[in-house]
Amino acid sequence: MSRYVSSIAKLISKLGSLPGIGHKTAQRLAFHILNMDPAAARALAEAIIEAKERVHLCARCCDLTDREVCEICSDESRDHTKICVVESPSDVIAMERTREYRGLYHVLHGAISPMENIGPEDIHLRDLLQRLQSSPEVDEIILANNATVEGEATANYIARLVRPSGINCSRIAHGIPFGSSLEYADEVTLGRAIEGRTLLL
Amino acid sequence: MSRYVSSIAKLISKLGSLPGIGHKTAQRLAFHILNMDPAAARALAEAIIEAKERVHLCARCCDLTDREVCEICSDESRDHTKICVVESPSDVIAMERTREYRGLYHVLHGAISPMENIGPEDIHLRDLLQRLQSSPEVDEIILANNATVEGEATANYIARLVRPSGINCSRIAHGIPFGSSLEYADEVTLGRAIEGRTLLL
Repeated sequence: MSRYVSSIAKLISKLGSLPGIGHKTAQRLAFHILNMDPAAARALAEAIIEAKERVHLCARCCDLTDREVCEICSDESRDHTKICVVESPSDVIAMERTREYRGLYHVLHGAISPMENIGPEDIHLRDLLQRLQSSPEVDEIILANNATVEGEATANYIARLVRPSGINCSRIAHGIPFGSSLEYADEVTLGRAIEGRTLLL
Repeated sequence: MSRYVSSIAKLISKLGSLPGIGHKTAQRLAFHILNMDPAAARALAEAIIEAKERVHLCARCCDLTDREVCEICSDESRDHTKICVVESPSDVIAMERTREYRGLYHVLHGAISPMENIGPEDIHLRDLLQRLQSSPEVDEIILANNATVEGEATANYIARLVRPSGINCSRIAHGIPFGSSLEYADEVTLGRAIEGRTLLL
């Protein structure tokens, strides 16, 4: 039943191809856009084009940036001896929000996943190794890959590659989320929490 | 904490201004768009601009269309003696999906709402009255306004205006949704279901 005007149908299908946007939401968004001020709709479209044109990967850390080297990599006040390895640019934002970490990042843009045919050469791993070779100041790699099977495998893989060069590899802690009670934790999380216990001094 | 690249921040803010899209979803969509094929991202942006440029209101029923008169209004096989009054273009699509109705539509683009300062002159009501004057074939107005306080008030207001001209005004039935049990119906719906009971013959 596609009695939509073709340009509306096209807009709905384009919006519906975005992640987490089903047909109903796409329809609601399309009608909202059609109701918008023409200048606002154009601004939305231009924001998409502009972001696509300006943004590329940082030559050092592979995070998204509109400069040659991103703001974090070129910030001399940060700790250049530590590199936190994450899977995606949104993980960098999540880490920055904690205000706990003042080192640098490396964005892999994915995780090794044999199931999805993603091998070590499909993520930005080679860039990390090259970067380590040309950055003798780095003394620690913090592996903040996601706590999934793929993330774990990738973290272990990187640790195996990096350790021979004498650089420390650490993995962020996994355990009970802060503010949560044991009762609601799944057994894998709880198992990790016990495994990763720390001595109270 | 806005360490975003400015063009990413702009895209996130534009996406976040859409209905039902919060900051987190906007961020996820933005990163998805940045990961998209450049041609696909451009196609999305162009779909927005094209829909905005091509689509306008049908000269007769005020539904969205890219022609002078929309497909439904210009379809001679439909029943031109009935006009179903709805609040929005998405209601037309919902009605069409039932395949129960073969008449015409009139889209008000809203409902009278004194609380939000929306009066009869702010919705496409005058167009409906003018249309009725120039369409002597119309013998019934089906009021399919939403089952909200505003929708009810608008339906009653239209009925009061139209009835003197001898055209029948009907209101769609309100009651228990099909497939649902009485237990879960709220008291207003159940009250409407009793009020609107029909004799079994």
